[in-house]
Amino acid sequence: MSERTAVQNAELALLLEVAGTPKPGNVDRERDFDDLRFEHFLAGAVGARPGLELAADGGPVGYAFERAVEGMADQSAGNTQFGALLVLCPLVAATNEGDLTPSGVDSVVRDTTVADAADFYRAFEHVDVAVDDPPEGMKPLDVRHGSDAVPTLRERDLTLFDIMRQSGGVDGVAAEWTNRFERVFAAGEAILDDSGSAPDRASRVFLDLLANDVDTFVVTRNSRETAEEVQRRAQAVLDGEEDATELAAELVARDVNPGTTADLTAGALFVALERGLVV
Amino acid sequence: MSERTAVQNAELALLLEVAGTPKPGNVDRERDFDDLRFEHFLAGAVGARPGLELAADGGPVGYAFERAVEGMADQSAGNTQFGALLVLCPLVAATNEGDLTPSGVDSVVRDTTVADAADFYRAFEHVDVAVDDPPEGMKPLDVRHGSDAVPTLRERDLTLFDIMRQSGGVDGVAAEWTNRFERVFAAGEAILDDSGSAPDRASRVFLDLLANDVDTFVVTRNSRETAEEVQRRAQAVLDGEEDATELAAELVARDVNPGTTADLTAGALFVALERGLVV
Repeated sequence: MSERTAVQNAELALLLEVAGTPKPGNVDRERDFDDLRFEHFLAGAVGARPGLELAADGGPVGYAFERAVEGMADQSAGNTQFGALLVLCPLVAATNEGDLTPSGVDSVVRDTTVADAADFYRAFEHVDVAVDDPPEGMKPLDVRHGSDAVPTLRERDLTLFDIMRQSGGVDGVAAEWTNRFERVFAAGEAILDDSGSAPDRASRVFLDLLANDVDTFVVTRNSRETAEEVQRRAQAVLDGEEDATELAAELVARDVNPGTTADLTAGALFVALERGLVV
Repeated sequence: MSERTAVQNAELALLLEVAGTPKPGNVDRERDFDDLRFEHFLAGAVGARPGLELAADGGPVGYAFERAVEGMADQSAGNTQFGALLVLCPLVAATNEGDLTPSGVDSVVRDTTVADAADFYRAFEHVDVAVDDPPEGMKPLDVRHGSDAVPTLRERDLTLFDIMRQSGGVDGVAAEWTNRFERVFAAGEAILDDSGSAPDRASRVFLDLLANDVDTFVVTRNSRETAEEVQRRAQAVLDGEEDATELAAELVARDVNPGTTADLTAGALFVALERGLVV
């Protein structure tokens, strides 16, 4: 069993995620977008560390996340691993509590406070994140307001878990927060049950997750129709009807980036590393 | 200017080094050896951190190095970045002293003690490193003895700098230790003067270094003749007479791995990052 700490495993999970190839539509070991390249993810993983350390030391999850995002953003491409850090911070916190299980992380996220929600909003000031317009009545809580939304959070007494509950229907990472990280844990176990190198396992679990549900980042940046197409075609790859590498080239060319699925893959790699995945 | 600490820049230097492609004969973003793959370098960089932190906190360079190597070796492929860490630890220590210059690092390495030498020998117990047989009279100090050599080190009152001086003729990293890290600093400045992405600059400076001197790791693992051939052919790439990608494929197929040149490249990337290279 490796001697790596939870922080090291979180950082390695971010690195293995981006190294796994092919991951259709994502930056991976073989593919870049024009302004979002492999090295930006390397720097993002290295930069996120102080925030991950806060989570590992029992710090507030919202603040740990905000610090992780600030460090991640210390490279020239902007948002690389915002969603992945939103997955990893509670997982690292649960590891610190000695309970990296669905119920352990559920208790971490349910214990979040209004202050955690405020720090979550502050994190959006470090980086542009593609999000949808909020529904009626939620406009003062548009994440793009950043810390300007904090007074409303306090007024309405909303914790970070409350915020995630309101977004669970439209955001795949928020859905994990409110659903005991079940897809992440299942994918982590699938990685452990798989064989071959860690990046190869990352690539396969990414395809499984992609076929398993629509990617909400694609819904937001492209359209629901495109997200459903991507889901169908990921299934076609699993069924041997399409080639993963060709799909990867096509999606990058069309600027279709299933980033939420990559975020879940990073979380799954973390779970697998903590449970003994050998690199 | 980035907010990254020296430790983060050292870790990022290790990652950018392995990401740069083509680096003929090395594992890089596009190439693996059968049992030495990209992900092992990712895990090596993450694992080395506690040792690098010791160097950044003013700890003894030999102990910092030994801890870095132990962490680096926490993956299944063995030696990934032994030489790179031997370059980086004194550079990080010099940064901590506020003097990341040839004279700053020269003073760090000249200040090493017999205890540093003992920890250097202990580092060889964590991992198999390809080395030559030592000359007559040096047999008790064969690094492969690990800590068994420590009594002899004490008897002869040899510091880590003394050990490096004895190997400077046959090892390119030791030569940097005894020569004010001049190739590393020059390569760092060349990276800063170059244009394009950080991994592309890493690839180009690697080729420059390879053409500029024989790689001592190739001398040790293959032969001096092979090392000289590699040097000539790197120059031919620079002269536009050979293709770097074809040379990379050929050297990997022949198991010719200019690892010392990669070690110097990692050091050069660290210097460039500390001096403002934007990723």
